[in-house]
Amino acid sequence: MNSTIETLLQHKSIRKYEDKPLTDEQIKLIVQSAQAASTSSYVQAYSIIGIKDKEKKKKLAELAGHQPYVAENGHFFVFCADFHRHDVIAVMHNHDLSTSLQSTEKFMVALIDAALAAQNASVAAESMGLGICYIGGLRNQLDEVVEVLKTPDHVVPLFGLTVGYPAQDPDVKPRLPLEHVYHEEEYQQNQDVYKQQLKKYDDEISAYYHERTNGERNDTWTGQMAHMLSKPTRMYMKEFVQKKHFDTK
Amino acid sequence: MNSTIETLLQHKSIRKYEDKPLTDEQIKLIVQSAQAASTSSYVQAYSIIGIKDKEKKKKLAELAGHQPYVAENGHFFVFCADFHRHDVIAVMHNHDLSTSLQSTEKFMVALIDAALAAQNASVAAESMGLGICYIGGLRNQLDEVVEVLKTPDHVVPLFGLTVGYPAQDPDVKPRLPLEHVYHEEEYQQNQDVYKQQLKKYDDEISAYYHERTNGERNDTWTGQMAHMLSKPTRMYMKEFVQKKHFDTK
Repeated sequence: MNSTIETLLQHKSIRKYEDKPLTDEQIKLIVQSAQAASTSSYVQAYSIIGIKDKEKKKKLAELAGHQPYVAENGHFFVFCADFHRHDVIAVMHNHDLSTSLQSTEKFMVALIDAALAAQNASVAAESMGLGICYIGGLRNQLDEVVEVLKTPDHVVPLFGLTVGYPAQDPDVKPRLPLEHVYHEEEYQQNQDVYKQQLKKYDDEISAYYHERTNGERNDTWTGQMAHMLSKPTRMYMKEFVQKKHFDTK
Repeated sequence: MNSTIETLLQHKSIRKYEDKPLTDEQIKLIVQSAQAASTSSYVQAYSIIGIKDKEKKKKLAELAGHQPYVAENGHFFVFCADFHRHDVIAVMHNHDLSTSLQSTEKFMVALIDAALAAQNASVAAESMGLGICYIGGLRNQLDEVVEVLKTPDHVVPLFGLTVGYPAQDPDVKPRLPLEHVYHEEEYQQNQDVYKQQLKKYDDEISAYYHERTNGERNDTWTGQMAHMLSKPTRMYMKEFVQKKHFDTK
């Protein structure tokens, strides 16, 4: 196993950082790494906003559900789906690109492009000994986030990424059984096997929580998911993304 | 600069591979790396299908627009947005999860989760000296792809990923200027600066194509984008994803 794969397999989200900002050189390497990721037909449909300003970080931390590590970290990035530059290109070249740009297909392209870039950024940061945490909570109140970041139409802030020097060392969290996520030749057709894999994972997660909380937390993965997903969240999202001219066609 | 960042910055898509399959050990390491990526609230909303069968690969290569390297590579992965297991969990726990699972918010979560996993897979493969190429063409005819892969409802195949021993060594393709993609504190508000950055990139790309084709290719990035996006593609996508119970609410 090489050192890159070791870095990948050792990933854990870091939610407490030393009070030490990243250098401009570190930030540049992380962004360059992000940009080096694959992009659908060279479209590069994303942008990244980096926040140093402490007041702005505090404001974003509030909007993201009062998570203190959104304000207290080495650097805070926001990854956005972005077709604003392609909208500018439409005017520049006098082409009507609106049907393309507003399609569900291109919404998917922009999300995937942004996520590939973000994961390269994360891997780059972790390879430098830094910790990271994705902040999906940024999507709690996107109208307010847009006001803080002044993003134009055709841009949707997708998630934040905190980066910094770790001040904690949590365990690596066990993933679903490999054979449940990875199917050979075709999707698993046997529902009994499929459910047994979930059951096996529930047992594993139950033991994991039990051990780490001295028996206080009694939970399974499927139970956790059923509980979480029974309360729909961020149901304004369809209206929001369509207002920004994504996913309408 | 460490070796992981070197790997990231050296990325180029490989479209010609040696006729040498990946070992099961390599495939396993790549999938484990994919699974180690961050996942939104532990939801793990994706699955991966690996194809070795030559006939199946040929069929998928046809569906993806007759790209020969979809059939001829070391291994072919398909990454899917997947809430099928959460739909199974709904029955298992007798909870109504349909509003959550069908929301635009959770569509975004599944796409981002799948893309983060895929990029870890790509980085793992490249760190082993293998080459990769994302296959967005898989979305050309998803009804037919679903028939080949036998994916159930609540699953959308998003893209393929070819992996294998490189039999070509293309150049690294220049990305947009860093300062155009990376904004500090807030999105770039000065439209003149914004357009100048695009112009600078156009000049760079124009020179890049010119040099690599002995003056035969005369193209800019914005011109390429205007041309490509003026022909909307995969406009069936909204209907398709909604038929699979994504992005309806």
